[in-house]
Amino acid sequence: MPDKSLRFDGARVLADLNALRAIGAYKTGVHKPTFSEPHMRSLQWLVQRLPEVYALEAARVINPDPNAKGSVEVASWCDEEGHFGSFLGSRSYVGALTEKDVDAARDRNSDRTMRDALREVGLAGRPRVTAERGRHIGYLEAHIEQGQTLEGGALSVGVVTSIVGIWQYRITFTGEQNHAGTTRMAVRKDAGLALAKFCVDIDERFPGSCGSRTVWTTGSIRLDPGAPSIIPGAAEMLFQMRDDDPTVIDRLERLLRSMATEVSARGPCTVAVERIRTGAPAMMDTSFQQAIEAASKEFAGGRSIRMPSGAGHDAQILSTIMPAGMLFVPSIGGISHHWTENTADADIVTGAAVFVDTCRHLLAG
Amino acid sequence: MPDKSLRFDGARVLADLNALRAIGAYKTGVHKPTFSEPHMRSLQWLVQRLPEVYALEAARVINPDPNAKGSVEVASWCDEEGHFGSFLGSRSYVGALTEKDVDAARDRNSDRTMRDALREVGLAGRPRVTAERGRHIGYLEAHIEQGQTLEGGALSVGVVTSIVGIWQYRITFTGEQNHAGTTRMAVRKDAGLALAKFCVDIDERFPGSCGSRTVWTTGSIRLDPGAPSIIPGAAEMLFQMRDDDPTVIDRLERLLRSMATEVSARGPCTVAVERIRTGAPAMMDTSFQQAIEAASKEFAGGRSIRMPSGAGHDAQILSTIMPAGMLFVPSIGGISHHWTENTADADIVTGAAVFVDTCRHLLAG
Repeated sequence: MPDKSLRFDGARVLADLNALRAIGAYKTGVHKPTFSEPHMRSLQWLVQRLPEVYALEAARVINPDPNAKGSVEVASWCDEEGHFGSFLGSRSYVGALTEKDVDAARDRNSDRTMRDALREVGLAGRPRVTAERGRHIGYLEAHIEQGQTLEGGALSVGVVTSIVGIWQYRITFTGEQNHAGTTRMAVRKDAGLALAKFCVDIDERFPGSCGSRTVWTTGSIRLDPGAPSIIPGAAEMLFQMRDDDPTVIDRLERLLRSMATEVSARGPCTVAVERIRTGAPAMMDTSFQQAIEAASKEFAGGRSIRMPSGAGHDAQILSTIMPAGMLFVPSIGGISHHWTENTADADIVTGAAVFVDTCRHLLAG
Repeated sequence: MPDKSLRFDGARVLADLNALRAIGAYKTGVHKPTFSEPHMRSLQWLVQRLPEVYALEAARVINPDPNAKGSVEVASWCDEEGHFGSFLGSRSYVGALTEKDVDAARDRNSDRTMRDALREVGLAGRPRVTAERGRHIGYLEAHIEQGQTLEGGALSVGVVTSIVGIWQYRITFTGEQNHAGTTRMAVRKDAGLALAKFCVDIDERFPGSCGSRTVWTTGSIRLDPGAPSIIPGAAEMLFQMRDDDPTVIDRLERLLRSMATEVSARGPCTVAVERIRTGAPAMMDTSFQQAIEAASKEFAGGRSIRMPSGAGHDAQILSTIMPAGMLFVPSIGGISHHWTENTADADIVTGAAVFVDTCRHLLAG
């Protein structure tokens, strides 16, 4: 008779998740900023109970198995969401975060230094753990999709093929600040209007040059001085593009720059395009993709699809030092970065079963 | 022999202005927020030397004249620029500012209450002066043009025909906040993009319905939440129109609202237009306009032009209780609301001479 303790237990996964999400509960969601009291309490929970909960289940099921060729280690990365930076935990683990980076890191909300935050939670001076080369056959991560591909297609598992790179630009418009009452329309150099036209131009011209899954976003606009009775003399937008194919981004960046040159030549405002973040798409390991797909056949009725990830994840950091794979579970309504973000219990359990089986496949390989 | 003291003296006007602008000097300009130390010091200067400097000169020249049928009173209105409100001084004088308004007024920069500011400068509890009905034949104001009509036409004096009304709108766009990486372009409801398109639409469609001097401005834009990796779920712009003809504004407001209805019907975002300020154009008295024009013939070689004022001025407040007139002197480069705002000395002197002579005309009438 097989050892019951070696069996995957969906109810146990849900119980763990429910215990974990009670810490820092906010409305129907969870709010748990890096180094906050709920964050630290959930880490203590993890240390005691060993969670990234899917991995925890995999460790529970696989590690005691005398037939397994290896074991599962569980990692919980800090600050993927970027309260103090981006992917600080995983970057530290792969050796891509210097002491200088830590010195410079500040809370995006309060401007408190990360050093102060570490001191306050009793972590100052604790040595950082880094990856031991050769110890791992790879890294597997599960995440909520944060989109509607799975839900829209009645699918259970997304097999992540790549994590897109993010390219970001500061686009600055320079006109002439003037009085909104006394300056005739014909002589205005309205930097805000120039910005609006540029956004509309992007919307019209990018579809002709983009890839099938390229996305671009203007998330922030600032007019200077930003007063109702003053014609904006300057304006700035933060513009972002994502794709897993750098040649697509190259093409779009050339288009963006040529549009800026056209606008400046035509007047009355000038436009400057400055790249402030250069993306590096991360490819997921093909044997990991195959293992997730095989596990999905067995535990998710084959309801899986290969897809790139439009969002960044710790797997892109880990992929720089070892083979990496990722699977997605469905988002209810595709909602992300909001306290209503959620996955149906049945999908959580299915995803966990696929995760555990993927680990087994990979360790058996 | 005529009494020398009754003669207009341009050098005296410039000396007064130079003394006055030394108080609160900032680079080549003056920075003198309401109730600040330099503001209070300049008021003391005025009380001692009796300045609205043009009016002071008029009072010096005309009041001692035994042949004059009346005299010139000098007023210096506080807070026309709106540190605590708009036109607080002149509104108080005409009886359009309640104690409740004063209670509610706050410094736009520091949020300090106006009551606190009054207490700090020793003005708390001082009774407010209000206009004595029937005492004045009218109100005359001189101001820098803040535009380029005079300079562009090599003119010395603007005879103000009307002060435009300002209509202001909060235009709100509602879409759906989402992840900038995982949400495909085709399903986005980007409120920021909807706003940009609306600005461009206004730019294209307003010229077909506006008057010859209508102006409109989007001075402020806010995306919500305003982060580079989040598709804006909401966006807001402050939009302003100015004209001295309310029928033109009516027509444009109808156009604005119909454009919003079209956008909402077409989707994917909805637009709401809310009027938050309703303008009231102020007509300048025709006999005042004639007097300024006559004085310009004599003292400015006829280099005057009738023109509306695109900016608001205290004269619009005074015009609600008595006949009012205004004259403009040229702006160097049309620059306004900046420390480089200035008028050439020769133009200042010409304007002062026209001002004094206008007073003489009006009092002789």
